[in-house]
Amino acid sequence: MEPDNGAVLAAALTRPVCVLGLGLIGGSLLRAAVDAGRDAWGASASETTIEKARADGYDVADTVAEAVRRAADADALIVVAVPLTSMDDVLAVVGKEAPDARLTDVTSVKEPVREAVDRWAAGARFVGGHPMTGTEFSGWDAGSLQLFHDKVWVVATDDDTDLDVWTDVVALALACGATVVPAASDEHDVAVARISHLPHLLAAVLAAVGADGGELALALAAGSFADGTRVAATRPELTAAMCEGNRAALLAALDDALGRLGAARGSLASTGGLLSTLTAGHDGRSTLEAARLDRRELRIDVSGTPAERLEAMRELGRSGGRIIGWTAEALDEAAPPEE
Amino acid sequence: MEPDNGAVLAAALTRPVCVLGLGLIGGSLLRAAVDAGRDAWGASASETTIEKARADGYDVADTVAEAVRRAADADALIVVAVPLTSMDDVLAVVGKEAPDARLTDVTSVKEPVREAVDRWAAGARFVGGHPMTGTEFSGWDAGSLQLFHDKVWVVATDDDTDLDVWTDVVALALACGATVVPAASDEHDVAVARISHLPHLLAAVLAAVGADGGELALALAAGSFADGTRVAATRPELTAAMCEGNRAALLAALDDALGRLGAARGSLASTGGLLSTLTAGHDGRSTLEAARLDRRELRIDVSGTPAERLEAMRELGRSGGRIIGWTAEALDEAAPPEE
Repeated sequence: MEPDNGAVLAAALTRPVCVLGLGLIGGSLLRAAVDAGRDAWGASASETTIEKARADGYDVADTVAEAVRRAADADALIVVAVPLTSMDDVLAVVGKEAPDARLTDVTSVKEPVREAVDRWAAGARFVGGHPMTGTEFSGWDAGSLQLFHDKVWVVATDDDTDLDVWTDVVALALACGATVVPAASDEHDVAVARISHLPHLLAAVLAAVGADGGELALALAAGSFADGTRVAATRPELTAAMCEGNRAALLAALDDALGRLGAARGSLASTGGLLSTLTAGHDGRSTLEAARLDRRELRIDVSGTPAERLEAMRELGRSGGRIIGWTAEALDEAAPPEE
Repeated sequence: MEPDNGAVLAAALTRPVCVLGLGLIGGSLLRAAVDAGRDAWGASASETTIEKARADGYDVADTVAEAVRRAADADALIVVAVPLTSMDDVLAVVGKEAPDARLTDVTSVKEPVREAVDRWAAGARFVGGHPMTGTEFSGWDAGSLQLFHDKVWVVATDDDTDLDVWTDVVALALACGATVVPAASDEHDVAVARISHLPHLLAAVLAAVGADGGELALALAAGSFADGTRVAATRPELTAAMCEGNRAALLAALDDALGRLGAARGSLASTGGLLSTLTAGHDGRSTLEAARLDRRELRIDVSGTPAERLEAMRELGRSGGRIIGWTAEALDEAAPPEE
């Protein structure tokens, strides 16, 4: 550890939090941050949401600009928790009111958000984030301070990442009960195309094909159809923004799926055999389950240059690893010296 | 009701049950039938399964032939509960030892089973059945007497269906806690291609595409991927037999899905827009949820010729209806006259 690591961590562990957008994710984050003892406040474009959040006892500013000015004064971590469709408007306020803010987000695509930050708030110290906690529900009422518990929170870990703000974001994620996967923004986008955006698209197609089968088909719909279409219940505008924002990576994943489905179709029509398709799927699912059971503890050596430390973090994520907490030594360094 | 309906129902309510095959479905059925007070016994080709079922206190014959001979003596309902791959062997024993048996099955495709029955046990009084209760688990140990509780059990309702045996199968399904959807065999096969076989195929493709994304992708896999690939954990041989047995209907469903996915791919690559695909999926899922909430009670008039009664039942199923029990009048008619 370098001499100032303790001070950076100490500040990160108590840094105030400003949450812009109080839907499922933002609303849950405000609750979880307060529950973790942080000074935290929010803002929403919806009067109804502001009223509900205040009625539940939370500190909500009258406007986004007011919340951002408070963040600038308090050197808070600003979390942009609005859908991609509203991202530009909110970032423009950040760029104006808190131009060098500590900034993160919670959206499911990292590269387009980074580009939007460069356009609207180029001076902000931005480190992208993505808690993998989406459900088919949305809005303040759907939120819960438990939402992040034991979930994965990706923290963008690129060559030019600001390590101080990176520590802020990791500390917030851990404080909310999540575990952290460090990943390069582009590698994150490729991965989520396969395990989040493609599943949403397949769920939509399956739901439409099933509904085409009429009332008898829906009456027979049991576990496989209910599970396979669950996320099709998400508001289509939210899913579209998420998927369309990750176009290149999603196209590659979709082509992979179309190739496999086409091969299955050809085999079913000719020999009738589906075993190779189904076996590949079974193997894939087994790999997922094995990955979940494979728990080992390792301590990362964070000496070296910032670039070396960032690459070590990324390599942890690439190999399926997660950050689950701080070592006792790091917390000792962060503690105020005893009198 | 016709004069003999009471006697038919009375016999159906207490008919002995012979279960051939003691895997997830057959093993659960033997448990549920015994729990419902039926005289019930089973048979299995696996020595291990026989030992386990006997150790759990169930009546298991030494051989399939012995179980079938007992069924012939007791005029029991024989339930064939083996995978499609073993269907011919078991039906051959039925054809030899109980040629005019009351016979049903629990497999997920109805037309190929009917053809197999015509080939191997042409004299049997066969009425196909399909409890929609598959899970990704299999074998005696995976079974439970609760498996059928509140689940849908399709009972084949074709023009030439034997109404006495049809009543036997419906009575067994209701006794196990299921609700009954009457459906023509071919309409059933078209429906399950869309809401069961296609979901299995999409789950396999999704699992394979996800696993191709490497360890980072699997580490990020959350709800949408876990739900969308759950049934890919089923033994691929079982899924293949089920899907391949419903080839024509599955090809049509698969082509529908491929058409929709291809359109989405084209739109994503050109305008970038996925909203129409996602909205169609959202609507489909909403239809499913609305169908589940739409509960009305109606009593079916079962006067008329057998053909008219069968068509009335099929129409109930086509419109999303279910049989949930017997009317008090029907049970009164079935009760022995008071002294």
